[in-house]
Amino acid sequence: MINTKERIVDATVELFRRHGYTGTGMKQIVAAANAPFGSLYHFFPGGKEQLGVEVIEHAGEFYRHLFEGIMDASTDVAAGVGNLFVGAAATLEATDYADACPIATVALEVASTNEPLRQATADVFASWINAAAGRFAAAGIDSEESRQLAISTIGALEGAFILSRAMRTTEPVEIAGKRAEAAVRAARAPNR
Amino acid sequence: MINTKERIVDATVELFRRHGYTGTGMKQIVAAANAPFGSLYHFFPGGKEQLGVEVIEHAGEFYRHLFEGIMDASTDVAAGVGNLFVGAAATLEATDYADACPIATVALEVASTNEPLRQATADVFASWINAAAGRFAAAGIDSEESRQLAISTIGALEGAFILSRAMRTTEPVEIAGKRAEAAVRAARAPNR
Repeated sequence: MINTKERIVDATVELFRRHGYTGTGMKQIVAAANAPFGSLYHFFPGGKEQLGVEVIEHAGEFYRHLFEGIMDASTDVAAGVGNLFVGAAATLEATDYADACPIATVALEVASTNEPLRQATADVFASWINAAAGRFAAAGIDSEESRQLAISTIGALEGAFILSRAMRTTEPVEIAGKRAEAAVRAARAPNR
Repeated sequence: MINTKERIVDATVELFRRHGYTGTGMKQIVAAANAPFGSLYHFFPGGKEQLGVEVIEHAGEFYRHLFEGIMDASTDVAAGVGNLFVGAAATLEATDYADACPIATVALEVASTNEPLRQATADVFASWINAAAGRFAAAGIDSEESRQLAISTIGALEGAFILSRAMRTTEPVEIAGKRAEAAVRAARAPNR
């Protein structure tokens, strides 16, 4: 039973990445998850909205772990930020620019029409900002600057992702990555 | 007849800003435009997709003119970029964070499933990049740096917009604006 729930969530993350929340139907979800239709309402009695909130939380946590893993594997925080964008560019190419960030897509689609989903995307962004700001502060960057760097880095990544996906080139993500890495490096420099 | 077509396009821009492409229905469009249902297929025989492409082109041109107007009214290109973000933050607040960029929303929703719409969003982003790069180059910034600055500025604005809208605070747009303005100012500085 746990496996069925996990399959539903995983399949829905993928569908949101490609079609967004509005463009993903319940029938598509059960087909992709290879789950009986009834199991959807068994696990998510609140229907598509409840599933959407759980999917956003799940995907948000997945990307936060990915971020932490990249940072742990990098020589310093600036290089880690650079590697984050390099990884995003590689993912775009590997998926033929099909997969977008499911959090950003849902945030744009429903932020003004569905409060529980908006709140879920806001919570994910806040958790990413805290994770990145924590890394920057641990590297000796002042706490307010760490927070601002975290917000601008995540914003730059989300925006570059949109441009790259629409234009089918990794250039925007690469340019944003070089600039984000340089900004972190400059914030760490002793003369600032 | 021209007025009806314009009303349809204008109403659809607003609907895309709030609900995205997938979340906007033809019935909603004719109701918001106060137009007879038949007029929709009269003006847009290709249906929702053709209307979507024209709406993206129309909105893309509107924002490009807005950008040019802000740049014309600003003391220099760096201040102009700062003013662009200040204006975006003010719009977010004025609309109670309801309105997103219709181009970015459609780009995220359909970039992997609808090629004519993806192409339309790519064309809009390219026109914005050219407009911004042209302004930067005219201010004496080298042409490759102008292009990169244009891409990173537009990406930063789109990404910050997502965070601000989801989190219901202008802070991400304000932070991104200060950094984008500083990047343009640094690129113009003679010691670079």
